[in-house]
Amino acid sequence: MRAARPDATAARAAADRLAGLATPPGALGRLGELGVRLAGLQGVVPPRPVDRVRLVIFAGDHGVADHGVSAFPPAITGAMVRTFLAGRAGVSVLARQHDVAVRVLDLGVDEDFADLDPQVRAELGAHKVRRGSRPLHLTDALTADELDRSLAAGRAVAEEEIAAGADLLISGDMGIANTTPAAALVAALAGLPVEEVVGRGTGVDDAGLARKREVVQRALRRLGDRIHDPRQVLAALGSADLAATVGFMQQSAVRGVPVLLDGVISTACAVAAEQLLPGAAAWFVAGHLSPEPAHAPALKLLGLEPILDLGMRLGEGSGAVAAVPVVRSAVALLREVALLADLASEG
Amino acid sequence: MRAARPDATAARAAADRLAGLATPPGALGRLGELGVRLAGLQGVVPPRPVDRVRLVIFAGDHGVADHGVSAFPPAITGAMVRTFLAGRAGVSVLARQHDVAVRVLDLGVDEDFADLDPQVRAELGAHKVRRGSRPLHLTDALTADELDRSLAAGRAVAEEEIAAGADLLISGDMGIANTTPAAALVAALAGLPVEEVVGRGTGVDDAGLARKREVVQRALRRLGDRIHDPRQVLAALGSADLAATVGFMQQSAVRGVPVLLDGVISTACAVAAEQLLPGAAAWFVAGHLSPEPAHAPALKLLGLEPILDLGMRLGEGSGAVAAVPVVRSAVALLREVALLADLASEG
Repeated sequence: MRAARPDATAARAAADRLAGLATPPGALGRLGELGVRLAGLQGVVPPRPVDRVRLVIFAGDHGVADHGVSAFPPAITGAMVRTFLAGRAGVSVLARQHDVAVRVLDLGVDEDFADLDPQVRAELGAHKVRRGSRPLHLTDALTADELDRSLAAGRAVAEEEIAAGADLLISGDMGIANTTPAAALVAALAGLPVEEVVGRGTGVDDAGLARKREVVQRALRRLGDRIHDPRQVLAALGSADLAATVGFMQQSAVRGVPVLLDGVISTACAVAAEQLLPGAAAWFVAGHLSPEPAHAPALKLLGLEPILDLGMRLGEGSGAVAAVPVVRSAVALLREVALLADLASEG
Repeated sequence: MRAARPDATAARAAADRLAGLATPPGALGRLGELGVRLAGLQGVVPPRPVDRVRLVIFAGDHGVADHGVSAFPPAITGAMVRTFLAGRAGVSVLARQHDVAVRVLDLGVDEDFADLDPQVRAELGAHKVRRGSRPLHLTDALTADELDRSLAAGRAVAEEEIAAGADLLISGDMGIANTTPAAALVAALAGLPVEEVVGRGTGVDDAGLARKREVVQRALRRLGDRIHDPRQVLAALGSADLAATVGFMQQSAVRGVPVLLDGVISTACAVAAEQLLPGAAAWFVAGHLSPEPAHAPALKLLGLEPILDLGMRLGEGSGAVAAVPVVRSAVALLREVALLADLASEG
């Protein structure tokens, strides 16, 4: 398995096209740069419209949620999965607004969704690995076998989405307490101190924040020397839903399909994907900046600048979906603005 | 003439609705705040979709362009007006992408567009005040009568757009050298030193930047004590196109229709509109942040935070149009996300 390489020739030709548009040099700012980047990722100049954007929400519970690290109880994970299915969550609204297809998958929710329609339930649970990942400060969240199954699930899902014609993929997250494993992953993979990466998530109080820091600290101590092996880090500190997200990103990079990153969960997974598959990050575009403290250093490690900075910390893929119209703006500008050469020959 | 007042009751009810959504408190970040603000401006909860967005580009030349302050020659103003009419400029592309109606008006371009179709030419020039505003470092850009006609033109255009059903208005600019009067206006109206507000515009070189600073310095010396009268400031340092933009914003505020601000030109006009009509700024929303140095202090003076920060400095209304999907996201979230109360009663 190897990451595809963006097309440097197409990127250079796109930069030439940008320089030839009937706009002052640099006036399009990051929209110009983003259009050039998309052309390099697609291997075509001008870039194709980014019509088919597909969001996959990977849901799962985290054993650590029973240890006072979140403002919400674990049962909310399943309730929010039902809200996605009903199309009434925050990301559902944004996805409708911006024509993004949404798919929800239960990788590790700690319930069976027995009340759901059998067909819906079968699709939701088609890649389920386990009911709740283990509490990372006490034991490894996943066994080696569970890690492999999670990664394989994410890869298979990316394949399905690419086969369905995706121009751009987004991963969303749902899982009470999931900023705890995300912070632990960033601390381990980026080598950062716990105080710099642990935040309040959905709004935990001071006592909860202190517990969350202690939990991550214990998890890192338990990890020990395995910190240098990203597979072991992901099994020890991650979860079924996060590992599937990593697999999803890896396969997108293998197949050369761009991924628009959301907040701290998706970016922590992107860091793991890059360490497991060097070169993968070339396919990642940063959708937004979350105020959760692990997010900025994770983006920096990947060399990415976020498109939006609106203080969003909803998760679900929402920050990435909100950035989709900006990506489409960038592509449209490079496709449709008049070229100086054309204006001169017409004038 | 008096600015309308936003509906504080509706804004409070919208804040209550935001707090009742099935999202963690504050998780929507600025999208949540923006939705609440729109509800207050519309006077209805939840806010109505912002479907009918209309951009008016006010074009005009500036006598100061003959004095080496721009990277481009004045003839580009008319050429770009033709590019707008052909739908091939940067803002044309963004407006098509995001379903924004575009109208171009010649308030003070230094040519007659004799080559255009008579009907198109008549519409373009329906509010024309003069051919080129006078060089502001040598003499007042507009007479008192020209100022009045420019302001009245902008007000009439706003009335027309509101009658056509606009939910949100945007002003765009086109005029070589127009960052010079914009910087002069911000220096005078905000009481800032020339070095803090004069920038490179479309990319003037070091010598041009020095000339631009000297020109603004001379204009401010010439202005003298009139600096305390915003009408006199606008006549002395502005132009027909900028004054019409001010009138456009004033009338939007009188009629209670929100205006999405673009970059330094539109924000300099917004500062003038607020000083001429206190309370007008309540109707202004900041679309983006330009790197042009006068922009950030002008936004600060109005108490506004920009939605996007993408290094765009194209003018034309482009930064505001790029922000339109974010405004629509904010409104859609407050309209469509499930309420906790509904989920509880359904569950």
